Amino acid sequence: MSEAAKRLWVEEDLGPDFRWSYRASSILFSGKSKYQEIDLVDTPTFGKVLLLDGKMQSTESDEKVYHELLVHPTLLYHPCPRTVFIMGGGEGATAREVLRHRTVEALVMADIDQVVVDACSKHLLRNTQAFADPRLKLVIADARAQLESWPHKFDVIIGDLADPLDGGPCYQLYTQEFYETVVREKLNPGGVFVTQSGPASFNSCTEVFTCIHRTLSTVFPKVLPYAQHIPSFCDTWGYNLAFTSHTQEVLKPEELDQRAAERIVGELEFLDGQTFAGLCQLNKAVRQALANEQEVYTVDSARFIHGTG
Amino acid sequence: MSEAAKRLWVEEDLGPDFRWSYRASSILFSGKSKYQEIDLVDTPTFGKVLLLDGKMQSTESDEKVYHELLVHPTLLYHPCPRTVFIMGGGEGATAREVLRHRTVEALVMADIDQVVVDACSKHLLRNTQAFADPRLKLVIADARAQLESWPHKFDVIIGDLADPLDGGPCYQLYTQEFYETVVREKLNPGGVFVTQSGPASFNSCTEVFTCIHRTLSTVFPKVLPYAQHIPSFCDTWGYNLAFTSHTQEVLKPEELDQRAAERIVGELEFLDGQTFAGLCQLNKAVRQALANEQEVYTVDSARFIHGTG
Amino acid sequence: MSEAAKRLWVEEDLGPDFRWSYRASSILFSGKSKYQEIDLVDTPTFGKVLLLDGKMQSTESDEKVYHELLVHPTLLYHPCPRTVFIMGGGEGATAREVLRHRTVEALVMADIDQVVVDACSKHLLRNTQAFADPRLKLVIADARAQLESWPHKFDVIIGDLADPLDGGPCYQLYTQEFYETVVREKLNPGGVFVTQSGPASFNSCTEVFTCIHRTLSTVFPKVLPYAQHIPSFCDTWGYNLAFTSHTQEVLKPEELDQRAAERIVGELEFLDGQTFAGLCQLNKAVRQALANEQEVYTVDSARFIHGTG
Amino acid sequence: MSEAAKRLWVEEDLGPDFRWSYRASSILFSGKSKYQEIDLVDTPTFGKVLLLDGKMQSTESDEKVYHELLVHPTLLYHPCPRTVFIMGGGEGATAREVLRHRTVEALVMADIDQVVVDACSKHLLRNTQAFADPRLKLVIADARAQLESWPHKFDVIIGDLADPLDGGPCYQLYTQEFYETVVREKLNPGGVFVTQSGPASFNSCTEVFTCIHRTLSTVFPKVLPYAQHIPSFCDTWGYNLAFTSHTQEVLKPEELDQRAAERIVGELEFLDGQTFAGLCQLNKAVRQALANEQEVYTVDSARFIHGTG
Repeated sequence: MSEAAKRLWVEEDLGPDFRWSYRASSILFSGKSKYQEIDLVDTPTFGKVLLLDGKMQSTESDEKVYHELLVHPTLLYHPCPRTVFIMGGGEGATAREVLRHRTVEALVMADIDQVVVDACSKHLLRNTQAFADPRLKLVIADARAQLESWPHKFDVIIGDLADPLDGGPCYQLYTQEFYETVVREKLNPGGVFVTQSGPASFNSCTEVFTCIHRTLSTVFPKVLPYAQHIPSFCDTWGYNLAFTSHTQEVLKPEELDQRAAERIVGELEFLDGQTFAGLCQLNKAVRQALANEQEVYTVDSARFIHGTG
Repeated sequence: MSEAAKRLWVEEDLGPDFRWSYRASSILFSGKSKYQEIDLVDTPTFGKVLLLDGKMQSTESDEKVYHELLVHPTLLYHPCPRTVFIMGGGEGATAREVLRHRTVEALVMADIDQVVVDACSKHLLRNTQAFADPRLKLVIADARAQLESWPHKFDVIIGDLADPLDGGPCYQLYTQEFYETVVREKLNPGGVFVTQSGPASFNSCTEVFTCIHRTLSTVFPKVLPYAQHIPSFCDTWGYNLAFTSHTQEVLKPEELDQRAAERIVGELEFLDGQTFAGLCQLNKAVRQALANEQEVYTVDSARFIHGTG
Repeated sequence: MSEAAKRLWVEEDLGPDFRWSYRASSILFSGKSKYQEIDLVDTPTFGKVLLLDGKMQSTESDEKVYHELLVHPTLLYHPCPRTVFIMGGGEGATAREVLRHRTVEALVMADIDQVVVDACSKHLLRNTQAFADPRLKLVIADARAQLESWPHKFDVIIGDLADPLDGGPCYQLYTQEFYETVVREKLNPGGVFVTQSGPASFNSCTEVFTCIHRTLSTVFPKVLPYAQHIPSFCDTWGYNLAFTSHTQEVLKPEELDQRAAERIVGELEFLDGQTFAGLCQLNKAVRQALANEQEVYTVDSARFIHGTG
Repeated sequence: MSEAAKRLWVEEDLGPDFRWSYRASSILFSGKSKYQEIDLVDTPTFGKVLLLDGKMQSTESDEKVYHELLVHPTLLYHPCPRTVFIMGGGEGATAREVLRHRTVEALVMADIDQVVVDACSKHLLRNTQAFADPRLKLVIADARAQLESWPHKFDVIIGDLADPLDGGPCYQLYTQEFYETVVREKLNPGGVFVTQSGPASFNSCTEVFTCIHRTLSTVFPKVLPYAQHIPSFCDTWGYNLAFTSHTQEVLKPEELDQRAAERIVGELEFLDGQTFAGLCQLNKAVRQALANEQEVYTVDSARFIHGTG
């Protein structure tokens, strides 16, 4: 790596008066699609970093944590997930984790951006095998349109979308109307839905996390929120897991571990039953924010996090 | 605030190729003591920020989280804490939280640095009342020497020290010898000890957190580790709570809530029984790192986190 | 100086994709007047730095170069300058240089900003004596109004004003109308006028330098442009010296040296006859830009350099 | 250009407490040779930028100024330069300017670094034609060894070398011994030598400029120093033009213009006789520093500018 490269830095604004900078050792890919700007940068701090519209989406150093938490609790909560639909997920890591489940027979992944998919499948070697798995049906298209018109329903639907940024490609996929008329309709009986839900720290959870939770709660009988600090996001990150079944019980840590052992190929790095039990115990400040949240996410009342898409 | 002030930034290296920068709106205090450099800076992002040797120690925006977690579980776990000793804590916030406990009759705080104490007591108004509380005995002196020579033992000892940096003033206060010959000796029967224990994320916990835990485990019969993401530290932060009693039971969330309601003046912002239960459920990666840790912290085998003191 | 101070940096944008940063060791003054933001910062790189609206105005390290070039050629070109008027100059350094001329009997300095004057006279010790000189009449008021209504004319008028920024306090003082109806009218026969004229490098001279030159050339019979690289301005800086006399000859280097020796107290650090001869030999690119300039600076067609006042 | 690219910045330290940063829109080349790190970066501020060991060497925005000043005064001062030797110059721009001279029949360029030559000849299209000119003999080898062993002498020798950095590849090529035993020996009668000579501002000229001048003055009967502000070097830059003839007269501006018109293909952008006359009038501070310089550059007493090679 060259001296000059040592002096090449990626800057990301974390707020109006706050930014971080990490050194780039090389630029693997830099391009623009119809939807967004895409960059893949190699860094000594985070390994390979995927940026969409200049915002860090995923890093080699901790993407496993983010993706294990998005995929495995969801699939493990389902009695026997055979069919899965991923909205977004172009990076390939969500598919990679889903395909570790022996029960999964068919996985549809609809990402709108061919450029993201191509860049990631070329450079993120960890996900290469997933892109080649015969169970995966990859569709480059609008996730909503695909899900809506797909001839079958699914056991599990996963929302691995960019944050709901003003003007960005994704904010409609966080609305009550979408959850009600599309997501719930396309889930088989007993089906489960999960979505990444933005920052969820005591001082950031009201940006979108609490609102997404409340929105899902108006559509699904039971919604389980959980959160984990993701270093490369510089925040605690939230998820919401929505059940179609009123009678869904909370799984005990040992039940989750048992299911993981039976169904998942290989060992998880971060998640197990006890870990998940901890992540579901949100702190008092976040629980109060969830309880106080009045707003439902609709196309008209969309709430956005800092930045524009 | 002036335009130029808008352009005044504090930079902190978070790693060799990684830094963050936050705007300073004004410099409240900037000075140097025999032990360290001390700065108090006002910022739009974090409110007032205390820096020791250029490293962020505490910010108005989230110091309550850090200090509630340091103080309250510890005191609540004790059946009736009457006497408390704080090592360090010059900022005053640890004392402030201790003094909210109605059972506390005497609090000794030994911080080595008069300059820190003076700057904080002048500028951090939230802590002013604590400095004036008649139950507080503030000693500007070496914490070890004071604790060792103090005529009485204590129900609770709290380590609110800077990280064990190479050459810094504090690393001896994290050693087995110190815990064994001083801390344990100066605790009353049933006494508890807590220490902040550095970064504790899945990818940072082996810097010092696991080693401090193991060191304490060689001295105390039971040690409870827990961790919480602190935004201004840009990481998850660890604590270790050490019990002198072999038979110490884990408190149920409702027991913790009950004790808090009885003993603490005012309501806590972040902590309650359920929150603490969650924080004690460490994730799989951290639990494995704790299990694998072989090293005991001694003066000879000291381990340091990034930076020099 | 503290470690944290070592990490305190002043950033200045030099262009939309270009900035520099220099470490501040301490903040001497930070305030806001009715007209602008004012900051005085001490730095290891430039010594004390004066910033107006976040833009570096002057530094201890090279202000002598800027001020010697503004003041001395102008006064030396006049046969015997007895009365001088400074527009702006609140920092005090222009007055300091003027007062070194033994011929000067009365100096009026009109700066609009009391806060600048107070901060500089307190912290810039090099200029303290000038502020106390009985020949100086300091007026805190609008320079135009003062000059216009002053009962006497002057031998020399000096424009030491901030750059003509859009919305800034000074751009009207660079217009043809002002030069014609005020400056020229208030000069005694044989009087000379000089104004700092912004960046004057081959690639920056068309921002305002060439336009100021052309504007002056429509009002005065002879205008002498010259330029010098000023490190702390990160550019070559331009001046325009305007003569009321059609017959003004160019002074030979030895004539300039002779006059300096007779009239100026102490020795100049940067300027002498040969130096000034060099600075008046503008390079081909700048000479062509001067020749090609068509625009005259009026209130309606004001041209601004990057930034807003 | 992508948003992330908008956030990619090149940082260069200009001093221990001073740096600048300019945005990179793309990385054209990044590599490492046996001698140094080489990077070619495209930027909105400076166009294409060549960095050696992380230090800006040349930019599209102002390399013409630097190279016109290095080449044309030198060749124009010679009565009829037929043969030219360039030490260094791998970028190709020096050769490009030399080959504009109709009198030049043979040009030898010896640069040690194939990687620099390849990257520049591929990406710096302005220089492509020069690399293909049949009069150019390009040798990838040590400049000293080539010059020493070359079978013929030259009319002009040009030193277009990196700054004399400690440990860098070039500092031996600035020594008295080299000038005496190699350069002077390889010049035809009446021959001239020029070398870039580092920063030459009133506050930077003693880094190496004055010492190079004095060293050359011990070897050549007449040495002409001159300097010009180069924006992308963030300083005024110095050159020294050394004559073998005791009787060399200073050319009048109109003589220089006359020779340029006769000999050079196309028009110069920056240089003409008047420009050069101005650049040779160094300011008082630099002239005094030249007069005061006592040191001669030898291998043992090498002086280096900030940074390491």
